[in-house]
Amino acid sequence: MKYGIVGATGRVGQILVNIIKNSDDSIGAVMFEGPQTIEFEKETVITNDAKTLLENSDVVIDFSAPAATQSVLEAAIENPKPLVIATTGLNDHQQNLMLEVSKLAPVLYATNMSLGVAILNKLVSMVSEKLRDFDIEIVEQHHHFKVDAPSGTALTLAESCAKARGLDLKEVMVTGRSGHVGARTKDEIGVFAVRGGDVVGRHTVGFYNEGEFLELNHTATSRETFARGAIKVSKWLVNQKPGLYSINDALGI
Amino acid sequence: MKYGIVGATGRVGQILVNIIKNSDDSIGAVMFEGPQTIEFEKETVITNDAKTLLENSDVVIDFSAPAATQSVLEAAIENPKPLVIATTGLNDHQQNLMLEVSKLAPVLYATNMSLGVAILNKLVSMVSEKLRDFDIEIVEQHHHFKVDAPSGTALTLAESCAKARGLDLKEVMVTGRSGHVGARTKDEIGVFAVRGGDVVGRHTVGFYNEGEFLELNHTATSRETFARGAIKVSKWLVNQKPGLYSINDALGI
Amino acid sequence: MKYGIVGATGRVGQILVNIIKNSDDSIGAVMFEGPQTIEFEKETVITNDAKTLLENSDVVIDFSAPAATQSVLEAAIENPKPLVIATTGLNDHQQNLMLEVSKLAPVLYATNMSLGVAILNKLVSMVSEKLRDFDIEIVEQHHHFKVDAPSGTALTLAESCAKARGLDLKEVMVTGRSGHVGARTKDEIGVFAVRGGDVVGRHTVGFYNEGEFLELNHTATSRETFARGAIKVSKWLVNQKPGLYSINDALGI
Amino acid sequence: MKYGIVGATGRVGQILVNIIKNSDDSIGAVMFEGPQTIEFEKETVITNDAKTLLENSDVVIDFSAPAATQSVLEAAIENPKPLVIATTGLNDHQQNLMLEVSKLAPVLYATNMSLGVAILNKLVSMVSEKLRDFDIEIVEQHHHFKVDAPSGTALTLAESCAKARGLDLKEVMVTGRSGHVGARTKDEIGVFAVRGGDVVGRHTVGFYNEGEFLELNHTATSRETFARGAIKVSKWLVNQKPGLYSINDALGI
Repeated sequence: MKYGIVGATGRVGQILVNIIKNSDDSIGAVMFEGPQTIEFEKETVITNDAKTLLENSDVVIDFSAPAATQSVLEAAIENPKPLVIATTGLNDHQQNLMLEVSKLAPVLYATNMSLGVAILNKLVSMVSEKLRDFDIEIVEQHHHFKVDAPSGTALTLAESCAKARGLDLKEVMVTGRSGHVGARTKDEIGVFAVRGGDVVGRHTVGFYNEGEFLELNHTATSRETFARGAIKVSKWLVNQKPGLYSINDALGI
Repeated sequence: MKYGIVGATGRVGQILVNIIKNSDDSIGAVMFEGPQTIEFEKETVITNDAKTLLENSDVVIDFSAPAATQSVLEAAIENPKPLVIATTGLNDHQQNLMLEVSKLAPVLYATNMSLGVAILNKLVSMVSEKLRDFDIEIVEQHHHFKVDAPSGTALTLAESCAKARGLDLKEVMVTGRSGHVGARTKDEIGVFAVRGGDVVGRHTVGFYNEGEFLELNHTATSRETFARGAIKVSKWLVNQKPGLYSINDALGI
Repeated sequence: MKYGIVGATGRVGQILVNIIKNSDDSIGAVMFEGPQTIEFEKETVITNDAKTLLENSDVVIDFSAPAATQSVLEAAIENPKPLVIATTGLNDHQQNLMLEVSKLAPVLYATNMSLGVAILNKLVSMVSEKLRDFDIEIVEQHHHFKVDAPSGTALTLAESCAKARGLDLKEVMVTGRSGHVGARTKDEIGVFAVRGGDVVGRHTVGFYNEGEFLELNHTATSRETFARGAIKVSKWLVNQKPGLYSINDALGI
Repeated sequence: MKYGIVGATGRVGQILVNIIKNSDDSIGAVMFEGPQTIEFEKETVITNDAKTLLENSDVVIDFSAPAATQSVLEAAIENPKPLVIATTGLNDHQQNLMLEVSKLAPVLYATNMSLGVAILNKLVSMVSEKLRDFDIEIVEQHHHFKVDAPSGTALTLAESCAKARGLDLKEVMVTGRSGHVGARTKDEIGVFAVRGGDVVGRHTVGFYNEGEFLELNHTATSRETFARGAIKVSKWLVNQKPGLYSINDALGI
């Protein structure tokens, strides 16, 4: 299988290129911005034209920025190919374009390509619904450079918990406790953002009751997890009918 | 609702009695062996006759021993009542009796009444199946008096993992690693029994891959968890049709 | 050895009585307020007179309230005995009394009698000082009834970290992160209060750096830990010269 | 400060070079075997002569192999410089050479350059000695390629625990529990080797007692930790008198 990689010199893009180079598959074409910071195989087409990229790829993986993604989507309307899109911050027009392409080819869209996070999200939703008496508290941890808190993934997990219990996260989320706060109320959902060192990402969703508790943890040990997740869902996506898919569809969960 | 408690002065039985006494429900009747070590409410019937127990109960919870359970089952054939049975070591005759009663009344049978363990078992089965590339390792921990290893619950969890991947646990289970053991093989499932202090029970099932891992942990903080689980499933059981149920049925998982 | 127990029917007091009853030692005398909710050995003197208590004890353990502790201290000036005091909220007069008694007999004062917490406090102080580049973050967890946050023990641990680095905890403590908070500053110390279920007490002090981290955790599995700690330090205290001791003195740390 | 790096293209060597390039310090000279796989600063002297290396360095860090280390030691007798040596497998002659050099210049030798592991080792020794009633159990985890078990670091930690209690590790170490093993004996030390995914290294030393436990964990998040440890101890070493030092000396523990 020949991959097209958009954002090939980015943080995840570089890892993608390395993994594919060391596999039975190959990289048909790459697009990127700025200087070429890594080496590609001789047969790989380096281009800044989305049309050329698509012509030389069986499936495209895109970890880039909205403008580049838009050019790929526009080209895909003429030459539909399976697309795996991990770009965040798409505007309405770009999302509509994606929807249009998905009528012509299979498109998978996910802002977190980790399989483990996808399944964790499914698990916490299930536990929240089934064990309604259990108090929910989430602790996430990232490196000390991260500027926002809690992490997007923690918020997604909290949202899944709230939704499973018919709660509005905005009303029940607590991000810190200090002073005489009183006993914990049944519905509140704690979401704590720990920061330090170079931790790639740890998320623990805890469910606490009299006599027992469950703690479900996901730890990313390297950014490779996002690259590997994208490759895995690509292999699934190429065999699907046109449509807009999530990572959960790929995992069958 | 009026509970009948078999084994009311046992380790879990005592906790059951205390929880129900402090709730809106009451204890209709109790059966136990040996001296009366705890106090019951005035209106509770103390008996060693299973027929009397059933007459004074809306639902029976049994944390006793096979002989006592057998007498309850025999009486239930004449006077069927919802039964929650947590007794271990039932022989074939006793299991057949249970099956017979389950045609007349709802019967729930489980050797571990913790809701958290039940749902954990479901989760690990799901993850094992969906994330087939992930290495599975289980670490369980109990107090230093425990004489067998790994724990029955750890073995059940390992069995669920193996089954989800079509493996035979006997062939793939590893309970220790020492010396030049070589690289880990894909299918092996580590099950490690840590012992120390007064730990009631901790079970962690880990799924490890390049770039990420998931660790799903259940911790029992007191034996209350088994009592509370039994009460919760009782409330569900009394509204069911005759049949033999598991704790997963009660949780709808 | 004969123990005198002040607050013998309190939450920790009851556990103390049970542990000593099942040991080679005995309980010489007890003081308590309110009704007698537990049984004592036949030879135990039940009294509300501190003088009588001291006469019948080789060492006194006090998990009571300031007024009772004061009466014991006043009596001890006449009849000095080794005293282990865990009462919180002593006023200046009572603390001075304690100091006075400590010139006549060995007195050990600690508001947390857990040996594990005492040693953890020592360890985090050492690590904070030796690994100055490491970011410090503390996560504590307690049952959902706890009304104040962070826990006193978490604050003590944070204080030890700050002191070891010459920082003022008030200036560097962060108890929650939400929104666009920016990158973590070097000196801040996160202290997060997780609440849920019936967790007796868990404290984790984490030290995070590029490439590695240390997490030091203490978990109380039952209130027994406070009783056992008090008994252990008592056995040490009876062999000491008059003086005011901390639990660290007893542990030799 | 100008560093000399022996084994500059090795796994840790490459990371060392990158960190120093991005710091205020510089790399005076490098030695390595095989092809040049990374780029050095223009002013860096690339050599295979230990004499030239020493002439161009204020301190040498050596993550290489015994033969290269030997040539550096031999040259250092003529031109003594501070040496940080992380090479494993030195024979008696090479160790004697190191001792000889240490009479002329400060030499620090450690087979694990992680500061966190060094301090963890100190902590567990202290806890083992002070909390003698606590059961000790160690769980270590590494990637699935690791061929030996338990890890060298886990064995070092277990050795420290045993020594602190006057025990012989060979007699008390347990690396797995399976079947009817009976209650845990007081002195045994469990050491369990979990394997999976790409985990760089996690070590948890647990101390368990009635009512409480302590768990001290070290996690390596990348091999950078070894490079950073070596740099940190270098900065300390250049100010020391001749002598043979350990990483604990550098940390003052």
